[in-house]
Amino acid sequence: MKILFSAPEKDWADYREVLPAALSEAGIAADLVREAAPGTVDYIIYAPNDTLRDFGPYTRTRAVLSLWAGVERIVGNATLTQPLTRMVDAGLERGMVEYVTGHVLRHHLGLDAHVTNPARRWHPAPPPLAADRPVTLLGLGALGRACAEALAGLGFPVTGWSRTAKAINGIRCLSGEEGLAKALRGAQIVVALLPLTPRTENLLDADRLALPARGAALINPGRGALIDDDALLSALDAGRIGHATLDVFRTEPLPRDHPYWAHARVTVTPHVASATRPATAARVIAENIQRSEAGEPLLHLVDRARGY
Amino acid sequence: MKILFSAPEKDWADYREVLPAALSEAGIAADLVREAAPGTVDYIIYAPNDTLRDFGPYTRTRAVLSLWAGVERIVGNATLTQPLTRMVDAGLERGMVEYVTGHVLRHHLGLDAHVTNPARRWHPAPPPLAADRPVTLLGLGALGRACAEALAGLGFPVTGWSRTAKAINGIRCLSGEEGLAKALRGAQIVVALLPLTPRTENLLDADRLALPARGAALINPGRGALIDDDALLSALDAGRIGHATLDVFRTEPLPRDHPYWAHARVTVTPHVASATRPATAARVIAENIQRSEAGEPLLHLVDRARGY
Ligand SMILES: NC(=O)c1ccc[n+]([C@@H]2O[C@H](COP(=O)([O-])OP(=O)(O)OC[C@H]3O[C@@H](n4cnc5c(N)ncnc54)[C@H](OP(=O)(O)O)[C@@H]3O)[C@@H](O)[C@H]2O)c1
Ligand SMILES: NC(=O)c1ccc[n+]([C@@H]2O[C@H](COP(=O)([O-])OP(=O)(O)OC[C@H]3O[C@@H](n4cnc5c(N)ncnc54)[C@H](OP(=O)(O)O)[C@@H]3O)[C@@H](O)[C@H]2O)c1
Repeated sequence: MKILFSAPEKDWADYREVLPAALSEAGIAADLVREAAPGTVDYIIYAPNDTLRDFGPYTRTRAVLSLWAGVERIVGNATLTQPLTRMVDAGLERGMVEYVTGHVLRHHLGLDAHVTNPARRWHPAPPPLAADRPVTLLGLGALGRACAEALAGLGFPVTGWSRTAKAINGIRCLSGEEGLAKALRGAQIVVALLPLTPRTENLLDADRLALPARGAALINPGRGALIDDDALLSALDAGRIGHATLDVFRTEPLPRDHPYWAHARVTVTPHVASATRPATAARVIAENIQRSEAGEPLLHLVDRARGY
Repeated sequence: MKILFSAPEKDWADYREVLPAALSEAGIAADLVREAAPGTVDYIIYAPNDTLRDFGPYTRTRAVLSLWAGVERIVGNATLTQPLTRMVDAGLERGMVEYVTGHVLRHHLGLDAHVTNPARRWHPAPPPLAADRPVTLLGLGALGRACAEALAGLGFPVTGWSRTAKAINGIRCLSGEEGLAKALRGAQIVVALLPLTPRTENLLDADRLALPARGAALINPGRGALIDDDALLSALDAGRIGHATLDVFRTEPLPRDHPYWAHARVTVTPHVASATRPATAARVIAENIQRSEAGEPLLHLVDRARGY
C-alpha cells in the first residue's frame, strides 16, 4: 500500500514520526511517501493549503484524508471525486474548548480593565455570575458542541444553533433560518464555529449583528468569511458589538494595513484557536485507513453537496 | 426574636430586602434591626469590616453569622465567645470558579500577547493543551475544591493541597507540611485559596516561590498576607515567577505607590475575585438561624483553635 503525504514541508516535520507509528499500531503495512506516480497511490493524507490541486490522475486512490477540520478550500474541487474525510481529533477539540472558554471568560470577567490599568483605579465591581450571561454558539458540530458543553458546565446559559435540529442536555438548541434570529437575540457573547459554505458565507451581516445585546462580544474561531467585515466594523464603531476577537480572516496572515489591527475593539489572534495535534490526528488517519481496507464506512466523511 | 444586622451601610442596601424574604421563607419571625440594646439581640449578622468589636455585652446572642468567607479579622477577638459561622454560598463559589478559571486560561493561552500586539505580529504558535499544564491549588475548601474540579474538567492536571488529607476524584491531593513542596514543585500555575491564619501567613516565602516551574504564574484570590511580598517581587524580577495576578493585599485598597501597581509582571484586581451574592447568602443565613432554633448543629462553624 502506498500513502502520499501531500502537505507543506512544515507538516511533514510534525507527522513523519507519529504517522508511521500510528499506522503500524493499527496493523497497516504501507509506504508513506512525499512523492509518487499518481496511479500508484492508495491514500492521500492532505492539507488544504498544499499545492496538489488535480486529483484526476489518482485513479487508484481510495480516499483523501484531510489534516484540517475546515475543508472549504477543497470541497468544491471538481477533480476530487474520491471520498474526502475531514479532521475530527480529540486534541483539536480540547484546544478549541480552551480557546473559546478563555476568551469567553475574558469578556465575562472584564479582564482587560485589570490587565491594563495605568490610572491604578481600585473600583471593586464584581461581574455578574455566568448564570446571568447568555452565550450563543453558532455551530454545534464536533467543536461547537464541545464548547457549548464546557460553557454550560461553567454555568453560562448556552444557546446553540445548527442546520439540523438537535437535543443536547443543558443547551437550548435551535436550528434553521428561523432559529438564527432567536439564537442571536439578546446574546451577550456570540461564538462562531460554523464551517464556511455558500450558505454560511457572510452569515453575520449588518442585520444579524444588530440582534445580540448591545455591546455583546463576538468571538470567531470558525472562518473569516462567515462575517461581513464592513458590517462588523460599523457595528463595532457604533458600539452595537462591544468587542470582536477574531482568529480567522479572509486573507491570512491578516494584512498589516487591515482595519482590524488598528481597531480598539478588536483582538486579532493569528489562527491559533486550535491546531490539529499530530499524535492524536495520526491515530484518526490510521483508523480511517484501517476502516477503508476492512470495507467499513469512513468516519468524518465530507458531504460534498452540503459543503462540510 | 431580634436579629442585628451589623455591617456597613452599603451591605444593608444589598440585604435589606433579600434577608427578610429569606427569613420569612424559612418560617422565622424576627425583627431585623440596624441597632439594638446588646442584651436583647438573638443573632448577629456580621461583616468583619464592621465597627462592632466588643461582643461581651451580647449575652443573649446565640450565634454570630459572618457575611464573609474569610474571618481572620474576627476569629481572634477574645470578646467573641458566641458560635461564629463563616459564609459558604453557592454564588460565592461560582464567582470564584469563574475568576480562577478565567485567570488560569489567560496565562495558559498567553492571551496578553494578542490583546496587546502593537507590532501586529502574526506568529501562530498554539499553546500546549491543558493536559500538559500542571496547576496547583493551595486550599481545598469550599472554594478551592470547586476550582480544582472545574480546572480538572477542562483537562488540566490538578494538584490540591490542604491541612487534612483528602481524596477527590481526578485531583492529586496532598496535605501537611511535607505535601506542600511536592504540590508546588513543577507547577506551572499556582492558585492560593487558603484562609489567613497564623500557620498560613507568609506561607509563600522565597523558598516556596522557588519551587514551581520557572516562569510559573501565581494567582492569589485568598488573602494578601499568604504571600511574602518582598519575596514575590524578587521572584518576579528574577523571572522565577513569570506573572502574579493578585486580588487581595495586606492593605486594601492597594496603596497607589505600592510596587505591585507598577510591576510589568503583576496584575492587580481590586478584591473582586468573588463577592457574596445577597440573594443566595441570605438563604444560607436564614437556614443557619433555623437550625440553631431547632437545636441542630450550625453549618460552616468556625473552629477558633484552627483559625478558620
Ligand atoms: N480557528 C481554528 O483554529 C479552527 C480549528 C478547527 C476548525 N475550525 C473551524 O471550525 C469549523 C467547525 O468545525 P467542526 O469540526 O465543529 O465542524 P462540524 O463538526 O462539521 O460542525 C459544523 C456545525 O455547523 C453547522 N452548520 C453548517 N452549516 C450550517 C448552516 N447553513 N446553518 C446552520 N448550521 C450550520 C452544522 O450543523 P449540523 O450539525 O446540523 O450539520 C454543525 O453543527 C470548521 O469548519 C473550521 O472552519 C477552526
Ligand atoms: N478574593 C475574594 O473575593 C475572596 C472571596 C471569598 C473567599 N476568599 C478567601 O478564600 C479563602 C478560602 O475560602 P473557603 O471558603 O474555600 O475556605 P474553607 O472552606 O475554610 O477552606 C480552607 C482550605 O484551606 C486549607 N487550609 C487551611 N489552613 C491550612 C494549612 N495550615 N495548611 C494547609 N491547608 C490549610 C483547609 O484545609 P482542610 O480542608 O484540611 O481544613 C481547606 O482546604 C477564605 O478564607 C478567604 O480568605 C477570597
